[in-house]
Amino acid sequence: MDAHSVPVRIEPRSATWPELLRPIEGPPEALWLRGRLPLLARTPRVAVVGTRAPTPYGEAQAARFAAALARAGVTVVSGLARGIDHAAHRAALDEDGGTIAVLGCGVDRPWPAGELADALVGRGLLLSEFEPGEPPRPHHFPLRNRVISGLCSGVLVIEAAQASGSLITARWAADQGRSVWALPGRVDHPMSRGTHRLIREGASLVESPEEILAEMGLDSAKEAPNAPPNPVGESGLAILEALRGETLTAEELASRLSRPLTTVLVTLVELEMAGHVARTPGGLYRLVRASG
Amino acid sequence: MDAHSVPVRIEPRSATWPELLRPIEGPPEALWLRGRLPLLARTPRVAVVGTRAPTPYGEAQAARFAAALARAGVTVVSGLARGIDHAAHRAALDEDGGTIAVLGCGVDRPWPAGELADALVGRGLLLSEFEPGEPPRPHHFPLRNRVISGLCSGVLVIEAAQASGSLITARWAADQGRSVWALPGRVDHPMSRGTHRLIREGASLVESPEEILAEMGLDSAKEAPNAPPNPVGESGLAILEALRGETLTAEELASRLSRPLTTVLVTLVELEMAGHVARTPGGLYRLVRASG
Repeated sequence: MDAHSVPVRIEPRSATWPELLRPIEGPPEALWLRGRLPLLARTPRVAVVGTRAPTPYGEAQAARFAAALARAGVTVVSGLARGIDHAAHRAALDEDGGTIAVLGCGVDRPWPAGELADALVGRGLLLSEFEPGEPPRPHHFPLRNRVISGLCSGVLVIEAAQASGSLITARWAADQGRSVWALPGRVDHPMSRGTHRLIREGASLVESPEEILAEMGLDSAKEAPNAPPNPVGESGLAILEALRGETLTAEELASRLSRPLTTVLVTLVELEMAGHVARTPGGLYRLVRASG
Repeated sequence: MDAHSVPVRIEPRSATWPELLRPIEGPPEALWLRGRLPLLARTPRVAVVGTRAPTPYGEAQAARFAAALARAGVTVVSGLARGIDHAAHRAALDEDGGTIAVLGCGVDRPWPAGELADALVGRGLLLSEFEPGEPPRPHHFPLRNRVISGLCSGVLVIEAAQASGSLITARWAADQGRSVWALPGRVDHPMSRGTHRLIREGASLVESPEEILAEMGLDSAKEAPNAPPNPVGESGLAILEALRGETLTAEELASRLSRPLTTVLVTLVELEMAGHVARTPGGLYRLVRASG
């Protein structure tokens, strides 16, 4: 048994106790660790969680997000389960990034056992509030989920059933004041139900890992999430010019520019979508950015 | 030429002028109609629009939503274009439902011409603010889009590029105070960009036509959008009992029930997700529904 494989116990008074765990409701009384202990000091951390029965799309996206987060220096936290959790840990390890598995059993007997658990002991970290020797009891998992979210700045959910453990993790995250990100998918697959539910309830819809990195102030600038604004054209320029220093209604613009109201309205919608003008609830338009 | 194929012109003072068009900014001065004229009096109307280059998923969903709307007596409005528009009109016709194509050219020369346009003249309705003989000029289409949304209680967008005509229709709808619904999809397809953008900007994510019908008060009750609540279990029942007539914190509940705080927290999250209790921002829990 090398040093990595000996379980280590820390308590809240320990200097290595994760700061993010301090403010949560019902914090663990102690944490057991096994693997690369210094990983626990590496922040930021983001959880990537989801169903044990993903689609190939979900599995590929879990790997894509976890790999990009790991490359950016983010520690990827998950639950060691088959499916999404497995893909996330594996992708982070493949990038030589940090990854932590939070267990619902003792760290000396990770469940499911296997190659991934062994790799995490060697190159990642197993973490649990349950004593060594403790088996993976069903009621441990929702408790375990509050530690997954509690360790992290935010939780990304990639495919989840309508009522599932991943949604419980997301709910903990929201209650703990952490970000909740959800990946959308096809409406004809039941594993999209959970993430779509989260989006409806206020989670951020994410399409790329760069959006998460940007929200955390780790802008990788590798992928532009939005298309560049379109050139505004002659009638657009005339409107932008007219809006310099003034807010005007569409009717006022049409009158000043001697153009048909409908043409002005069309151009305004295009300018608004390109981010050049903003429309107030009262129907007044104002300049946001003079030109793309 | 039978009666259906003769273009008919109506003006805002006409009794058949669509009421929903009256309050919009820059309303058309007149409408040209060709086909089954009484269709114009049939409400409610919902627009189903999207890209000319859909995925098989998008095409199937356009047909699914349009068919269900048509079966429920909703008139399906779209723009006759290839792709999503075509699938929506076709599905509505196949259900013997009402469907209206709003054109960016004269109703005597629908574009694109073909079997669908012919079928719409016979069993649906072509509608345009442009004079007979007018060709489909590019600047007509954004104008046409404001009539699509203006005719409808809401607009459903099924697959759209990041900056596209469908998003312009959705923007008109929002400006006109109409509902905007967007279908999510896979993040690795560019045709999901537009609908995901709409969802981020506040459009309602929809998974099924029943959600749209419910919002319009036409509940078909054919498909339950949510899973039935889970049974609450013994510890759940104890908490629900304790919350009868009182709002309590998790700590207070744990103390009254002599249970560990973490166990109470887990049960509270499960009860919250099942809709039995609600959590206030201050951390107080209250009863929503005693039992599923």
